[in-house]
Amino acid sequence: MSPSIHPSADVQSSNLGNGTRIWQYVVVLPNAVIGQDCNICSNCLIENDVIVGDRVTVKSGVQLWDGLRIGDDVFIGPNVTFTNDKFPRSKHYPETCSLTEIDPGASIGANATILPGIRIGRQAMVGAGSVVTRSVPPNAIVVGNPARIVGYVDAEAGAPSGAKDSASALVQSDPRLHQLPKVADIRGSLTVGEFERSIPFLAKRYFMVFDVPSVETRGEHAHRECHQFLICVNGQVSVVADDGRTRREFLLDRPDIGLHLPPLTWGIQYKYSADAVLLVFASHYYNNADYIRDYDEFRKIVGASV
Amino acid sequence: MSPSIHPSADVQSSNLGNGTRIWQYVVVLPNAVIGQDCNICSNCLIENDVIVGDRVTVKSGVQLWDGLRIGDDVFIGPNVTFTNDKFPRSKHYPETCSLTEIDPGASIGANATILPGIRIGRQAMVGAGSVVTRSVPPNAIVVGNPARIVGYVDAEAGAPSGAKDSASALVQSDPRLHQLPKVADIRGSLTVGEFERSIPFLAKRYFMVFDVPSVETRGEHAHRECHQFLICVNGQVSVVADDGRTRREFLLDRPDIGLHLPPLTWGIQYKYSADAVLLVFASHYYNNADYIRDYDEFRKIVGASV
Amino acid sequence: MSPSIHPSADVQSSNLGNGTRIWQYVVVLPNAVIGQDCNICSNCLIENDVIVGDRVTVKSGVQLWDGLRIGDDVFIGPNVTFTNDKFPRSKHYPETCSLTEIDPGASIGANATILPGIRIGRQAMVGAGSVVTRSVPPNAIVVGNPARIVGYVDAEAGAPSGAKDSASALVQSDPRLHQLPKVADIRGSLTVGEFERSIPFLAKRYFMVFDVPSVETRGEHAHRECHQFLICVNGQVSVVADDGRTRREFLLDRPDIGLHLPPLTWGIQYKYSADAVLLVFASHYYNNADYIRDYDEFRKIVGASV
Amino acid sequence: MSPSIHPSADVQSSNLGNGTRIWQYVVVLPNAVIGQDCNICSNCLIENDVIVGDRVTVKSGVQLWDGLRIGDDVFIGPNVTFTNDKFPRSKHYPETCSLTEIDPGASIGANATILPGIRIGRQAMVGAGSVVTRSVPPNAIVVGNPARIVGYVDAEAGAPSGAKDSASALVQSDPRLHQLPKVADIRGSLTVGEFERSIPFLAKRYFMVFDVPSVETRGEHAHRECHQFLICVNGQVSVVADDGRTRREFLLDRPDIGLHLPPLTWGIQYKYSADAVLLVFASHYYNNADYIRDYDEFRKIVGASV
Amino acid sequence: MSPSIHPSADVQSSNLGNGTRIWQYVVVLPNAVIGQDCNICSNCLIENDVIVGDRVTVKSGVQLWDGLRIGDDVFIGPNVTFTNDKFPRSKHYPETCSLTEIDPGASIGANATILPGIRIGRQAMVGAGSVVTRSVPPNAIVVGNPARIVGYVDAEAGAPSGAKDSASALVQSDPRLHQLPKVADIRGSLTVGEFERSIPFLAKRYFMVFDVPSVETRGEHAHRECHQFLICVNGQVSVVADDGRTRREFLLDRPDIGLHLPPLTWGIQYKYSADAVLLVFASHYYNNADYIRDYDEFRKIVGASV
Amino acid sequence: MSPSIHPSADVQSSNLGNGTRIWQYVVVLPNAVIGQDCNICSNCLIENDVIVGDRVTVKSGVQLWDGLRIGDDVFIGPNVTFTNDKFPRSKHYPETCSLTEIDPGASIGANATILPGIRIGRQAMVGAGSVVTRSVPPNAIVVGNPARIVGYVDAEAGAPSGAKDSASALVQSDPRLHQLPKVADIRGSLTVGEFERSIPFLAKRYFMVFDVPSVETRGEHAHRECHQFLICVNGQVSVVADDGRTRREFLLDRPDIGLHLPPLTWGIQYKYSADAVLLVFASHYYNNADYIRDYDEFRKIVGASV
Repeated sequence: MSPSIHPSADVQSSNLGNGTRIWQYVVVLPNAVIGQDCNICSNCLIENDVIVGDRVTVKSGVQLWDGLRIGDDVFIGPNVTFTNDKFPRSKHYPETCSLTEIDPGASIGANATILPGIRIGRQAMVGAGSVVTRSVPPNAIVVGNPARIVGYVDAEAGAPSGAKDSASALVQSDPRLHQLPKVADIRGSLTVGEFERSIPFLAKRYFMVFDVPSVETRGEHAHRECHQFLICVNGQVSVVADDGRTRREFLLDRPDIGLHLPPLTWGIQYKYSADAVLLVFASHYYNNADYIRDYDEFRKIVGASV
Repeated sequence: MSPSIHPSADVQSSNLGNGTRIWQYVVVLPNAVIGQDCNICSNCLIENDVIVGDRVTVKSGVQLWDGLRIGDDVFIGPNVTFTNDKFPRSKHYPETCSLTEIDPGASIGANATILPGIRIGRQAMVGAGSVVTRSVPPNAIVVGNPARIVGYVDAEAGAPSGAKDSASALVQSDPRLHQLPKVADIRGSLTVGEFERSIPFLAKRYFMVFDVPSVETRGEHAHRECHQFLICVNGQVSVVADDGRTRREFLLDRPDIGLHLPPLTWGIQYKYSADAVLLVFASHYYNNADYIRDYDEFRKIVGASV
Repeated sequence: MSPSIHPSADVQSSNLGNGTRIWQYVVVLPNAVIGQDCNICSNCLIENDVIVGDRVTVKSGVQLWDGLRIGDDVFIGPNVTFTNDKFPRSKHYPETCSLTEIDPGASIGANATILPGIRIGRQAMVGAGSVVTRSVPPNAIVVGNPARIVGYVDAEAGAPSGAKDSASALVQSDPRLHQLPKVADIRGSLTVGEFERSIPFLAKRYFMVFDVPSVETRGEHAHRECHQFLICVNGQVSVVADDGRTRREFLLDRPDIGLHLPPLTWGIQYKYSADAVLLVFASHYYNNADYIRDYDEFRKIVGASV
Repeated sequence: MSPSIHPSADVQSSNLGNGTRIWQYVVVLPNAVIGQDCNICSNCLIENDVIVGDRVTVKSGVQLWDGLRIGDDVFIGPNVTFTNDKFPRSKHYPETCSLTEIDPGASIGANATILPGIRIGRQAMVGAGSVVTRSVPPNAIVVGNPARIVGYVDAEAGAPSGAKDSASALVQSDPRLHQLPKVADIRGSLTVGEFERSIPFLAKRYFMVFDVPSVETRGEHAHRECHQFLICVNGQVSVVADDGRTRREFLLDRPDIGLHLPPLTWGIQYKYSADAVLLVFASHYYNNADYIRDYDEFRKIVGASV
Repeated sequence: MSPSIHPSADVQSSNLGNGTRIWQYVVVLPNAVIGQDCNICSNCLIENDVIVGDRVTVKSGVQLWDGLRIGDDVFIGPNVTFTNDKFPRSKHYPETCSLTEIDPGASIGANATILPGIRIGRQAMVGAGSVVTRSVPPNAIVVGNPARIVGYVDAEAGAPSGAKDSASALVQSDPRLHQLPKVADIRGSLTVGEFERSIPFLAKRYFMVFDVPSVETRGEHAHRECHQFLICVNGQVSVVADDGRTRREFLLDRPDIGLHLPPLTWGIQYKYSADAVLLVFASHYYNNADYIRDYDEFRKIVGASV
Repeated sequence: MSPSIHPSADVQSSNLGNGTRIWQYVVVLPNAVIGQDCNICSNCLIENDVIVGDRVTVKSGVQLWDGLRIGDDVFIGPNVTFTNDKFPRSKHYPETCSLTEIDPGASIGANATILPGIRIGRQAMVGAGSVVTRSVPPNAIVVGNPARIVGYVDAEAGAPSGAKDSASALVQSDPRLHQLPKVADIRGSLTVGEFERSIPFLAKRYFMVFDVPSVETRGEHAHRECHQFLICVNGQVSVVADDGRTRREFLLDRPDIGLHLPPLTWGIQYKYSADAVLLVFASHYYNNADYIRDYDEFRKIVGASV
């Protein structure tokens, strides 16, 4: 099925995929590239240096400016507004446009504003009316002005254990909460951990994270061989553990609860309280080669379809 | 006078009332219903499952999606953005659209965003640029992202007494502030109320409201026979008393100030401080039949035109 | 048995009761009056305008200055120090001494300091090393510098009900805690009381007490006929209910807990938190004749031996 | 070069300057006045009582309502939304439109909302997605809902001294931070200033500014002859010193740091903390004639091109 | 060397070690055991069930009650008061006395009170006037009521250092409060002072005092020629102005109130709030010779009898 | 009128002024000097190096120690206790007594305690039961423990290292603070420790201590072989490290500071802030035999004389 173009539209490009529909009063400039089965609603504008994937929906009142890269299956709500110049002045043109990337499956709510040079991750969801001033990680849900992460798509609350439900290309094991002993008496409280006993490995290293602004997300990587054991010794923090297919979210808020993140687990820490101090024990000294920092690469390694 | 349609518009519906004008580059789908004397400005889109009342103004850049119900005399500012899917994904369509209702006389400010499934009450006013995430009660003014109630339309600040200015179908009397005695000495302060003396009725019942999130509005009903006497014993709260025609707003912030709400007064409590405790004495035991919970019904009962 | 006086003592008074013993290096001036079976330990001084009851113990190092009145069965610890001039200057003598009264059965701990013009109530207990700057009510326990009430002698923690254990000359019923309904939802919390239903009488009057300095004790009286129902609607307060024989202490710290104090109950409120607001419903209008303000009179009325 | 108008546009005005381009689906009403070399992108609307200067860019999806005055070189981002009625109701028209002025060189970010009756100053920059509810001073940067000043265009952080880099028509000298002595011991801290010694002039006058709401900007003027010396004795405040060409920003947050503002310096104070107290010494008594309150006049006096 | 007993003492025990001295008016009961080289000063009492080690010093006015065990080398200050019954009542004797142990080398400061059943560790030091309610560990230093650990014996800590001079003829004038103008509007508040106009002299110098611990008193001197003008620009402070005969106290708590202290006024500042910032203008540069730092000298200079 | 001395008194001095009276059981040593018209009540003691002015009143139970200078017209209440040695130890005599001066006209309330080396100014007034730890300025009124100035009479309302200094029987090494790396960026702060690298041993175990009441002391033991590494990850705590001879105190208040306590160090933790969390790494699993819990035993093991 060839593309369908409403007669009132001004479409100057011929790079339109099959099944794509262009509605009333839309302008498309000559070099724009639009995939298959897209739907571009009335009163939109698409400039030249724009690439749009397959099965993308663009609702009315949206402009796609030079520098935009829209992945497959993206939803763009009505009156969503993109930008490509951080400090615009009339008749001053930046030498190169800021690149803005919307990864596959993402959804941008109605009337949201997207600042230039931002990447919105796979399956992420931007709430209606939000003003997005920083990149959004895969699967995150953001809302507000400025937009903040308020959750992750489909993350279930983590329970103490949980049966492993899928086999993968590599050996992955489950993240697991550990209840450490706690002794309280009139002199205060005490909790103890013994390495290779109550903690499932010998620590070569610890690190502590603190003074984290509440908006921050940390972690966002996986390890190939290193085990980690996380304890929130003050305040609280939420940890999302993702095996490439599903996500589980754990709240750490007591010094006698530890979370074991085995290798090949994509870990995210967020919703830090102002007074949070996160203590992490690691089974290896620091080795940059042990980190997997790209989510798509991670999904490949663990055998999840990309 | 028959409807007037600009030649550049693409109007596919014939359900347009007399005196209605459709401007440049507007799209109207075949099943849309639009009342009389409306004004639909340039670059708008109106889908099929949409009903618009009489004398409605829709400024430029607005889309009315399936599921919208617009009452008479509504104003919709430029680039206001509606939605009908809470978690939109491209090519996934909800089985049924969320219904969004804009009641008669409401006004939605420029570039506001309205989330799906919301009702905006009669005469309510949404500030420009607001993101409305919850329903808005009649006469309320909301602003911000997310939008919060900041006042009520035409509410005057309540003074100690005030002459009654309008006769009604039923006997209505005025809400009135009472200054109760307060005695302070080195042991602290004490305030006293005597029923049927300083308080104009005998109490059969009291209730207390506390731990109210600051965003909340409570009350929003009238009684047929029951008198109420409100004292904010800690923190502060604002009370709007509405006789169906005009509204007066009272700030309660001291344990020795009481507000008498006679029957047939529509009462609203809002702007609770975090530590507010509101004590209410009632002249009757609880009786569900004594409540009038619908504002339109209330206006009918007190003889205000609807 | 006639009084026994150590030969090293200098006793100039002949007003000594039978069985009283005076030890080494004690001075007693001519007009002092001392009861029976007292024990005055070494190195004490007793001036002229002093009256000491029966069975009083005065440990070593204590001076009883002009103006002191010591009831029966009082214990005065070692080095306890009394005063009779608030702003002493050498060679300036006050026209009249401040009167200091220690009521029967009271106990003053070692090395305590008692400021002038103070009354220490029946059975009250002053902690060792305390500096007492204000009068102490009956049965109260005070400690610190300055001394604060920290409890009441023999007060048990009040439980929801409790069987009445002694018959008295008049009909007394027990104080009782009532759990009132509480409904909490996203809009906040609500608690309700209905007079003559969940509250065991019809209220003619309410009063509220607030802004009470933490050191203060209020109440300290009983009613002949009036019922009271106490609710601490903000903060917390402790209530001691005394039937003339035993005391029970109740902590009020929630708006949905009420304490019914029937007539002929001696009530004391203390340990007010800074933000406490105590709401009291009363079954009668104010009537001064209904108050019993003297603890000894109260004990007579309820048939407790004095 | 005469104006260029796309054939799909509906341009009813002939007041278009040379070099101006009007794109697809734009409506321009008959009395609108548009200057030279402007660019009006697709899907815009321009009403009658509108004046647009030269070299103005209006991106897609914007309406310019009656009452708008746009200066030269202004940039208006996509979907920016203007208003001209503070309390809009359908079919109620204000007698006169609120005038909204956008001064030369200003830039309004994508999807911003501008409330009626506002003036946006020369070179000011409104962040994308902002909701502007108050006028914006020259050179200010505002963001958020509601929009707040977060900085000034091109202001560098002030360092202790700094070489003067440009000659001007009049004798201007640099603002300069002074470190005053501070002595701290167990009794507290002390700082001292001596006029004509550590402070470069004799004070005839001081004033203090306090209780400033955090949103407020004060100052915004220059003096012809008067020197000022600013100390923030409590809390903190930021001071922008502008010589007509460049701006430097100083943070005052300690009682032992003073900022000398010589004459012919345009000074702005903002970002007051809630507890800020700003102490200012002045070398002259108050004289209204010494004030330069208009930024354009100031730039003329110091020889900066306007 | 056999024990030495003053003839005025009443020593009934023969268990006294060599070299021990008993002074005037001391009572020792028959079963007391006292070691060698002890010194029991005048007016003490030692009961029967008491064991005292060697080289113990007991200063005057102390009673050692049944149940006390005193180690070697212990120091017991004058009027120290021990106890052996936690809830003493006259004529009620505990079945067994609480045991109180004072370990070797400990030191109990003058007039301290020791509650029953306590152990005071080796070398521990109890501050004068303390009320000890809990056992004290070895080497600890405790002070206060109740006593708290404030350090350990011989633990080092840092300390700092202090200056003075004088002669003039005399004219004294009164200190005087000045109400300075205050202008408040929506942008905040402003207060102004003009030297030689609203402030009665020309300022050569200012200083500011801040971060003063609340217990501190500053000032405590007079000037011969220098005028001062004090403004509390944040928080509050009290100033006592003394002309050598009478004192007046001023509370400074607002930035628009100034206090003029003329020469030959003895000034004291105290009751600083935690956030107080006191700004002082002085009519002269700093000159040590202008200070009068001795109160008696000051009184002579101003002609007050000493 | 010559002095009057009660026959039971032991007055060895002849330096008594006319009109002075000495009462029962008073001791006056030979070199004491007492002025005219004084009154020394029963059971007092006056040592040699004491000078008392004229018209002084000393109530019962008071000792005037060497080093006291009492001005004219001073009032000393009953059981007031003076001192002349700041750190008294039995049989250790200071080379010179601290001088304590009570200036003319001062008044010291009953049972007050006066620390050594203090001057109490002219007309000052010390409240009953106060513990005076600092000099009192002229005219001041002080009360409490410790005594604080509450008014004026007649005022109207208006380090990181340290060389090891002693060799011991066993190999002891010094406790040492370690500065761990800290990296702070916009995402928060991070500190890292590597076992056997930045931390001088491999951890077999960690424990955390929290919720410690501020009054508590923990630790109070040494290890034979186990190393410990202490980090206060939140709040603050003080650690005393004692090698048996000297003590050093460390404040831990940052997550990037660690304290290494080698074996054979007696450690004490105290002064916990309310929010303190102390993390301890240990080089060995728990082994009770490794603990030395008795301080005397510890001192023997490390070769310190006991």
